[in-house]
Amino acid sequence: MEVMYMVYSGRYTRPNLHLLLLIILQFDLRTVEAVWPLPQTFTSSTERYSLYSQAFYFGYGRQSAAQHGCSVLDDAFKRYFPLIFPDYTHAYDFQRFVSGRPFTVEVSVDHDDCESYPKEDSSERYNLTVSAGHASLNAETVWGAIRGLETFSQLVYQDDFGSYFVNKTEIEDFPRFQFRGILLDTSRHFLPVQAILKTLDAMAYSKFNVFHWHIVDDPSFPYQSSTFPDLSSKGAFRPMTHIYTQSDVRRVISHARLRGIRVLPEFDSPSHTQSWGKGQSDLLTPCYKGGAPSGTFGPVNPALSSTYQFMARLFKEVSSVFPDSYIHLGGDEVDFSCWKSNPDVRAFMQKMGFGTDFTKLEAFYIESIVNITSALNRTSIVWQDVFDNHERRNSLSVVEVWKHGCYLCEVRKVVKAGLRVILASPWYLDQPGPTHNWARYYTVWPLAFKGTEEQKKLVIGGEVCMWGEYVDATNLSPRLWPRASAAAERLWSDEKQTSSVEKASPRLQDFRCRLLRRGIQAEPLYVGHCKHEYQGV
Amino acid sequence: MEVMYMVYSGRYTRPNLHLLLLIILQFDLRTVEAVWPLPQTFTSSTERYSLYSQAFYFGYGRQSAAQHGCSVLDDAFKRYFPLIFPDYTHAYDFQRFVSGRPFTVEVSVDHDDCESYPKEDSSERYNLTVSAGHASLNAETVWGAIRGLETFSQLVYQDDFGSYFVNKTEIEDFPRFQFRGILLDTSRHFLPVQAILKTLDAMAYSKFNVFHWHIVDDPSFPYQSSTFPDLSSKGAFRPMTHIYTQSDVRRVISHARLRGIRVLPEFDSPSHTQSWGKGQSDLLTPCYKGGAPSGTFGPVNPALSSTYQFMARLFKEVSSVFPDSYIHLGGDEVDFSCWKSNPDVRAFMQKMGFGTDFTKLEAFYIESIVNITSALNRTSIVWQDVFDNHERRNSLSVVEVWKHGCYLCEVRKVVKAGLRVILASPWYLDQPGPTHNWARYYTVWPLAFKGTEEQKKLVIGGEVCMWGEYVDATNLSPRLWPRASAAAERLWSDEKQTSSVEKASPRLQDFRCRLLRRGIQAEPLYVGHCKHEYQGV
Repeated sequence: MEVMYMVYSGRYTRPNLHLLLLIILQFDLRTVEAVWPLPQTFTSSTERYSLYSQAFYFGYGRQSAAQHGCSVLDDAFKRYFPLIFPDYTHAYDFQRFVSGRPFTVEVSVDHDDCESYPKEDSSERYNLTVSAGHASLNAETVWGAIRGLETFSQLVYQDDFGSYFVNKTEIEDFPRFQFRGILLDTSRHFLPVQAILKTLDAMAYSKFNVFHWHIVDDPSFPYQSSTFPDLSSKGAFRPMTHIYTQSDVRRVISHARLRGIRVLPEFDSPSHTQSWGKGQSDLLTPCYKGGAPSGTFGPVNPALSSTYQFMARLFKEVSSVFPDSYIHLGGDEVDFSCWKSNPDVRAFMQKMGFGTDFTKLEAFYIESIVNITSALNRTSIVWQDVFDNHERRNSLSVVEVWKHGCYLCEVRKVVKAGLRVILASPWYLDQPGPTHNWARYYTVWPLAFKGTEEQKKLVIGGEVCMWGEYVDATNLSPRLWPRASAAAERLWSDEKQTSSVEKASPRLQDFRCRLLRRGIQAEPLYVGHCKHEYQGV
Repeated sequence: MEVMYMVYSGRYTRPNLHLLLLIILQFDLRTVEAVWPLPQTFTSSTERYSLYSQAFYFGYGRQSAAQHGCSVLDDAFKRYFPLIFPDYTHAYDFQRFVSGRPFTVEVSVDHDDCESYPKEDSSERYNLTVSAGHASLNAETVWGAIRGLETFSQLVYQDDFGSYFVNKTEIEDFPRFQFRGILLDTSRHFLPVQAILKTLDAMAYSKFNVFHWHIVDDPSFPYQSSTFPDLSSKGAFRPMTHIYTQSDVRRVISHARLRGIRVLPEFDSPSHTQSWGKGQSDLLTPCYKGGAPSGTFGPVNPALSSTYQFMARLFKEVSSVFPDSYIHLGGDEVDFSCWKSNPDVRAFMQKMGFGTDFTKLEAFYIESIVNITSALNRTSIVWQDVFDNHERRNSLSVVEVWKHGCYLCEVRKVVKAGLRVILASPWYLDQPGPTHNWARYYTVWPLAFKGTEEQKKLVIGGEVCMWGEYVDATNLSPRLWPRASAAAERLWSDEKQTSSVEKASPRLQDFRCRLLRRGIQAEPLYVGHCKHEYQGV
């Protein structure tokens, strides 16, 4: 047991310090509880087996529906080998001359979904049994097998001489919530593709399974549309360098797929669309002042039929580029003042019989967009504003709750209306504030509201939001990791087994050190050290 | 003029947003005010000269006291060439085939201090004149010349085709405060030497001139002492990897010297010394409980003569390793409870006639250490606690003010006692809280207290503190930069010319982009972009 002192220096007062003011024992990796997020059931013994990189194999079980040539698993085997043996690539591999007993990880899956994409209802369940010379990993799908490989990689540890071990272990595991997402905002700052790919890598280490790509917004439109190339050539920060080409997007989707991660694109409208207006004239509402156009523009113009034609063509492209069955339509923070100022919009209101109730206009707009995407066989997600502002909710499917305050009250309202919920409110990790404390993101209880079992099932998961006002590739990783991992455990693991911050703390410290070893720039939780510190400066 | 929109997305309420809720014009680099920190006097015209990397030269003026072979300037010329021509190292240098007019930067200094170390009273004044084909840079010392080279490098800009230009310019410049420091804490987390060297690079870009190395503290003792090797072999997080060898320390000092940066070591005592006790028995005070030693230890034991013998030997080594004439003795946050519990300490109190006033014991201890370092010709700095707790202040020289609240009240008290002040309170950049806002570190007025001119001169400068509880190499750079640069301008530039956050904002955005181009992981100020984003993920 390696003891790590957490000494309070007290140069200033810190919030929530009572949680940290302990001497925390950093369990050596030998204690096999060091898997993050914690599996549902976990039995292990102190019996341990040596692993030798030159005598370590991945293989397919004889009964497995997937066999060699399965892209998802073949690629995973290649990825996990150096993750399990991090010293392997070193020039001098001291194990080279050791002839050790072979060890095989045998993977079997029930379905050959090797060339498909992970879906909203894909099973991620797996069983993992580690015994002498052999581990067997069984799953219904390749996505479950990938989760099991991650778990296996976290069971392996090194002693002080660099030898590798794994303990006799028995695990049955499955996620508590089916939707475990991270939102990245590539409009307020452009994130180079590499930064996105690296985030996907780290997401897989914490078993996240949805990348919510908030790809465009007011400040810039980096998505290079093949149908409307002007959107990025005029709306991106820089039309040649600060864009995602079709090939970039394919690369992101493919990288995500191989890690069992869905890519959920968001094209937020009618608000948050200032950058769209640069490359698409007559899309935004001209605002009026003193009876004349002021030269500024408001939300998308809901009074023109050209708007809906444009949206139909755009979403047709989007649904051909992004294979996921979900699409995020945004719909948040619509300011009515520009609509109100515009005589054409007011005339349209009269024609439609909306009177002066602009929420009806907003509802009309959103419903039209929902219909467009439904026709494309897409399930739409909207921000909670859309739910809050409208009485006719039958066109809605999934509502993302993001506002602060009593977010569980909102969750309850949404599920009572029979709609599905994604919870984001407690996980705004970009936010100014005392965000150092990972425990704040850990002690979240998404189902702690009064409701039936049926209603609770409508909470399909949660999402970490990393908005881009203050975040770009320079600080994305330390701001996300390992705090997002705290949310990941909440979304994957059994709540009763993971309710204690004190018990989670040494495991999360271990996991954070593992992230460093894997090249993820995860910031420290508190005073302490890792055997292998981050060196990439 | 490149317009950068700053659009408020408003997903949550942000403090101090009124400062940012503007459309800010990002001045193209062509507007030569883009030097950070702002020089004292600055005249420039729109007349511009092309620079060609293959026809660009640094040279020494004929009258210069320093000539070729001057280590500080020769090294600076080598460093600044690729900083001025950032594309130069690219495989294809399109300028290679352009035969351009030559341009020479001629440097002249009054003193040949090429092999010395920057000192507390070293002049950093310089004059820089840029005209056709020629820039002349004059300074009293090589340290001033280095500051001028930094300024020159920031005057150079590229157009959209990659060509380099510099405008006709006249600059007279000198720092407002002589002490402009950054504290790094290498005890709460170990910082690899590379992270320290990179920080020194970035410090030079903002004209910082003191690296305050808070090298040891409670959690770990990474300094490898030649006199007391057990201090690190038993007190470091890891005795082989998490230490600074003598050669590491020399490397840091040498890297700093070449950038005109002093290295000010802190060996904080009598408190903050838990890690010292591991390698040096009988140094810390055994705490008592119920009449018997409890097994825990308190501050350094001030009742034993062996303590002072140990300190004398340690500081003798420290003053031979660190050439700077200042040494930081710490002295903060002494808790008397352990001293009070110990019968030997109480007996010593009686013998010394201190009664039950433990501040007298504390004063006795600190005075003894101050005397030890005075005998080694070192000027000691102490944290404000030492000043606050003692009436006999005649042994003190420099007081570092760090506590929050009315820090200028404290500054005033210290200068009224005739002591020098370093101000740190407003610049705790590691601190939890709404630290996004750089303006908070910019709008600091260190001399805004009632006092005579003589008293104000006693405020020798300020310091950015980056304590290590939540900071290591993973997040050091984005947490320091560019917010520390805001403090740097406050400490270098004329206050009247730099009182407006609005005016500073576009310059700081430009400067931050320049930091990215130089490989410094400086986080964004707000929504926007740089031509060359950070790619190092």
